[in-house]
Amino acid sequence: MNLRIRDYGVKIGSLETGKLNKITDVAGVKVGHTTLSEGSCQTGVTAVIPHEGNLFKEKLIASTHVINGFGKTMGTIQIKELGTLETPIVLTNTLNIGVAAEAVMEKTLEANPDIGRSTGSINPVVGECNDMYLNDLRAMFVEKEHVHKAMTETKIDFEEGCVGAGTGMLCYSLKGGVGSSSRTITLDHGNYTLGVLVVTNFGFISDLRIDGKSIGEQLSKYVIPSGETKDRGSIMVIIATDLPVSERQLNRIIKRSVTGLSRTGSVITTGSGEVAIGFSTANKIPHEPNGDLLSTSTIHDDEIDEAFRAVGEATEEAVLNALITATPVKGRGGNERPTLSELIEKYNLSLN
Amino acid sequence: MNLRIRDYGVKIGSLETGKLNKITDVAGVKVGHTTLSEGSCQTGVTAVIPHEGNLFKEKLIASTHVINGFGKTMGTIQIKELGTLETPIVLTNTLNIGVAAEAVMEKTLEANPDIGRSTGSINPVVGECNDMYLNDLRAMFVEKEHVHKAMTETKIDFEEGCVGAGTGMLCYSLKGGVGSSSRTITLDHGNYTLGVLVVTNFGFISDLRIDGKSIGEQLSKYVIPSGETKDRGSIMVIIATDLPVSERQLNRIIKRSVTGLSRTGSVITTGSGEVAIGFSTANKIPHEPNGDLLSTSTIHDDEIDEAFRAVGEATEEAVLNALITATPVKGRGGNERPTLSELIEKYNLSLN
Amino acid sequence: MNLRIRDYGVKIGSLETGKLNKITDVAGVKVGHTTLSEGSCQTGVTAVIPHEGNLFKEKLIASTHVINGFGKTMGTIQIKELGTLETPIVLTNTLNIGVAAEAVMEKTLEANPDIGRSTGSINPVVGECNDMYLNDLRAMFVEKEHVHKAMTETKIDFEEGCVGAGTGMLCYSLKGGVGSSSRTITLDHGNYTLGVLVVTNFGFISDLRIDGKSIGEQLSKYVIPSGETKDRGSIMVIIATDLPVSERQLNRIIKRSVTGLSRTGSVITTGSGEVAIGFSTANKIPHEPNGDLLSTSTIHDDEIDEAFRAVGEATEEAVLNALITATPVKGRGGNERPTLSELIEKYNLSLN
Amino acid sequence: MNLRIRDYGVKIGSLETGKLNKITDVAGVKVGHTTLSEGSCQTGVTAVIPHEGNLFKEKLIASTHVINGFGKTMGTIQIKELGTLETPIVLTNTLNIGVAAEAVMEKTLEANPDIGRSTGSINPVVGECNDMYLNDLRAMFVEKEHVHKAMTETKIDFEEGCVGAGTGMLCYSLKGGVGSSSRTITLDHGNYTLGVLVVTNFGFISDLRIDGKSIGEQLSKYVIPSGETKDRGSIMVIIATDLPVSERQLNRIIKRSVTGLSRTGSVITTGSGEVAIGFSTANKIPHEPNGDLLSTSTIHDDEIDEAFRAVGEATEEAVLNALITATPVKGRGGNERPTLSELIEKYNLSLN
Repeated sequence: MNLRIRDYGVKIGSLETGKLNKITDVAGVKVGHTTLSEGSCQTGVTAVIPHEGNLFKEKLIASTHVINGFGKTMGTIQIKELGTLETPIVLTNTLNIGVAAEAVMEKTLEANPDIGRSTGSINPVVGECNDMYLNDLRAMFVEKEHVHKAMTETKIDFEEGCVGAGTGMLCYSLKGGVGSSSRTITLDHGNYTLGVLVVTNFGFISDLRIDGKSIGEQLSKYVIPSGETKDRGSIMVIIATDLPVSERQLNRIIKRSVTGLSRTGSVITTGSGEVAIGFSTANKIPHEPNGDLLSTSTIHDDEIDEAFRAVGEATEEAVLNALITATPVKGRGGNERPTLSELIEKYNLSLN
Repeated sequence: MNLRIRDYGVKIGSLETGKLNKITDVAGVKVGHTTLSEGSCQTGVTAVIPHEGNLFKEKLIASTHVINGFGKTMGTIQIKELGTLETPIVLTNTLNIGVAAEAVMEKTLEANPDIGRSTGSINPVVGECNDMYLNDLRAMFVEKEHVHKAMTETKIDFEEGCVGAGTGMLCYSLKGGVGSSSRTITLDHGNYTLGVLVVTNFGFISDLRIDGKSIGEQLSKYVIPSGETKDRGSIMVIIATDLPVSERQLNRIIKRSVTGLSRTGSVITTGSGEVAIGFSTANKIPHEPNGDLLSTSTIHDDEIDEAFRAVGEATEEAVLNALITATPVKGRGGNERPTLSELIEKYNLSLN
Repeated sequence: MNLRIRDYGVKIGSLETGKLNKITDVAGVKVGHTTLSEGSCQTGVTAVIPHEGNLFKEKLIASTHVINGFGKTMGTIQIKELGTLETPIVLTNTLNIGVAAEAVMEKTLEANPDIGRSTGSINPVVGECNDMYLNDLRAMFVEKEHVHKAMTETKIDFEEGCVGAGTGMLCYSLKGGVGSSSRTITLDHGNYTLGVLVVTNFGFISDLRIDGKSIGEQLSKYVIPSGETKDRGSIMVIIATDLPVSERQLNRIIKRSVTGLSRTGSVITTGSGEVAIGFSTANKIPHEPNGDLLSTSTIHDDEIDEAFRAVGEATEEAVLNALITATPVKGRGGNERPTLSELIEKYNLSLN
Repeated sequence: MNLRIRDYGVKIGSLETGKLNKITDVAGVKVGHTTLSEGSCQTGVTAVIPHEGNLFKEKLIASTHVINGFGKTMGTIQIKELGTLETPIVLTNTLNIGVAAEAVMEKTLEANPDIGRSTGSINPVVGECNDMYLNDLRAMFVEKEHVHKAMTETKIDFEEGCVGAGTGMLCYSLKGGVGSSSRTITLDHGNYTLGVLVVTNFGFISDLRIDGKSIGEQLSKYVIPSGETKDRGSIMVIIATDLPVSERQLNRIIKRSVTGLSRTGSVITTGSGEVAIGFSTANKIPHEPNGDLLSTSTIHDDEIDEAFRAVGEATEEAVLNALITATPVKGRGGNERPTLSELIEKYNLSLN
């Protein structure tokens, strides 16, 4: 696998990382990619599987937060109303959300023959970024089988960089992609993990900061963004945790992802669809009532600050991991963007 | 066309209706249906076209309101952020929102060759209700061509009842479908129109009220709902107006659709996805800035009460029109529901 | 006490009421009024005490919902963020919210000597309606002692009508005031109660409906609203329940109060500040963490429909109780409004 | 006046500042302070006057954004519903919001004899932070006359640091207070200004970053925060601009204040009430309709990015100005905190 930001001596924040320093440090979470990279087809699908069981029957507490709503993420209305997630989270390009939703519904129908008969509907959760600079977006390359593959061929120690939904993405005018990071949280009653996965597709080169250092200002001497003069990007931020939290508490946590984004230099431009989706694996909510009250465990709100710190740190590091693990891609019309690792080597830059 | 609720002597509210008493009384608005009705395939597509031009290039001020979020309506995040609508509004069944989104994007791509090249993305707006009682929902019958047809073969004087997205829907345990109504609004500076189109798929028979009269209580002696013991329904409420309003004002207006729903007897059950989507044709917002400030005309908030009254009345009447224009449908597994017009005749009921 | 709407033979909805058919049917809830009624001073304070203990130390799960935001209710931001209520709910007139907040803070400081020393702040919850037609609002008559009195001299079997915050209020162009009602909810795991208290100050005479019957249309022949030509009113809806619900579920419930309002005829005019505030007594949330996880019991969302029905019915009946229990008040500049009970007698009206 | 952060060679961001680099660079805006500093009374009032005219009769487009809702800011419900500001914005300590509201209402009543007679209510906008560490919060020292003074004795070139509402506040475990900054925005159709005023009362010393540099880590060797072990702070962010924007656009802008906060190191802890309130002076909204449509000018959303950048930069610099202009305060029980300027001198720190 590619070098990550810590391999360059950059350590974000003060909390410990999980074992792999990835979202999959949260037990049960798996990630799959389908990468479509050939000529003007530079796109793909990334799926986050929240737990191994039947998610429709054993839902997880979930929440979404819109950082900037120039985006098309599906499934947020029901998550807000019911506080639960009942399908995998699938990420792809902007114009392929429809086909992705279809595949998620197919998979859920297959596992649940009672849907549409004795029980109701499915709420597919699909996020997107716009990879039109490197990818021929209009061709709508993603097919249902690509989505199924991403949901099926999943790993714990998954790839970052130009894979899956990150294949054709940009970040701070450089090549972007998928990045991840995690943090551990220590409370009186136990140790917990919070992990973040991002698909990065936002930002101007001159704004980039790495652990506070304005690397982007230096780089902007060498890198003149061409083609796109405006930020039409996005970022999807997926947050997993085993911390026992209510949907309200989870919402408070995932909102803080913006502190990490901001510290990488983002001004959250108008054209950038930025959405955070979080879930907690700590409590499973059954699809149907069983005649008894549900009992859920949660932290006290006065214990939440470490999770706030964790999500900021992990989001900041995940964005930097997406940048640093990105590899060269030449796409639509010969468009390409330098990678951060290339520039570091070429200009002999120090990141710390 | 079928008899409407006014043909039975029921007059809802005090405001005048528009010419057709339909959403298309708002100039420029058209409606198209694709009806799929054969055996266990009882579903379809209804498209609302907000204006005849290139909606992507000349957007309309728009707003959405979630009455109850057990639903999958797409496109609400961007409407909230940017306050505009850039595609037709397409309504279909719950599991066909993906394919509907694809068709909307295809149509928009076709009309706008710059998307994905020099300009950005598309925000398809798709709503749904769950027609699983009469329709084999799992079969996902709707195809892209059905959606294209609904967007293309549009009318001003369109059909209500068991057509389009309303084909397989229920309402107050009876056969439901598509209904519409409109009201005119008189202010110092002009006369305006507000129209509503609903796809109804909610409610229990015993709750039904027609202009305050508890018809449902009477009917529940004759009609014993079978099959579905719980309300897993939905209602989509589409609101069009030529009143010059900001997105904030429009949101205030469309929220009041719930007054009309409530007066038909709804308790807004948990399983019922209920979403209102509104647009105003009064100001067109260009896709790109032209170097000058935009100038928009709006009413003063102190002038808004008549629009509040209009949307409540038109929503109430649209629901009743959906009920009364519905025709018998025998669907999946021989499931069927009586129609209101049948029951009126059979039991010699008076509605007023 | 005055006759209530059921004494006139009007029975709203299908669920059973609690013992008193008041919000205080929820165990632990008490209500106090301070009534200021003399000449142009026609105003007061109503306090709802959620439980008898130290509410700051043992908070209750709470939620608020803005039906129409032309209002000044205090305390909603923190309730939304933390999901809890830590003070009584005090209702008064629009310009006396400041003094009411001061009194609530004083009372809380007194009971909690650690506030401002070892622990933080207080979130006073104060709602208001505008009684300017009958009361000299500009005089800001309410003083801290009046608020303290309402919080201290509380009852279970409290008065309705022109008392407390309801003293100077109007409703449907008639005399309004305080009203209450309750419903019982039967689920597999137990029986629960939901109660509503309203301060009504909204609506036009011609819109009034009593159990669907358009009484207002009849009455508008006799009652010509003078003075105020526009609805500048409000309604505060306080909802208590012992149903074990999360803050998200509670929010879903209190939102449905609008179904009851709508059935009394409301169009929710622009000038009417309409806010619902709810709390559940089922789970107490300690002010500080104790080192362990919190365990809370909640219903499953699939069991919530009866609570939805209950809140609509109880809100509808509470509004009607406020109207029917109101007594004649002559206030500022000799302004007055007829009471519903007077009109019924005078014109020999039948309500059912 | 005290040295500001630019006097130490720290230049935040890339945009030009306004003339004074304060919120009052937006024409018409004035700021007044009442400072109460003696012994255990370390508190005060800061008032922001949006324009010189009768604000109740000529309202401004306004918006609020809750960053973290552990706070008691008043007036947000009506701003959200109507999109306008009709009173000055008054900032004070947490337990004196009631008295502040009363004073704002008194002042508005005085200027508008029709309120409570022929027209309606007043929506006072009051924000707060908790100064309990240095101030005897329980004593509720602020009186109405202090609020009136702050609203009356206003300046364009106002003081920063330990004045007004900032008197007893902390920031990053150091002495905090009032800070301000501004930026100019250049668009095709004109030049505009955006200014920010903050009352800072949040953060841990080790998190402090100045233009990316982790000064706080260094300082935490010297400064061991005592007394308060948890962040019970807050920040109020007031944003003024003459950019012609709708309330929706303004909301998008003020939300981005969090990017600046984050870059100073904030993790937005649970106990920190953080609220942004913004207004635009570009369009005045009359209190009553005049029979014609309102015509408002706004930018196109595609032109908004520079305002997003401006608000982030100005917020970041305003926080740093609050820190660096703070002066020593010894308060309740002898509590005190070092000032940033002291520490810089004492430890010979370089900020850049």
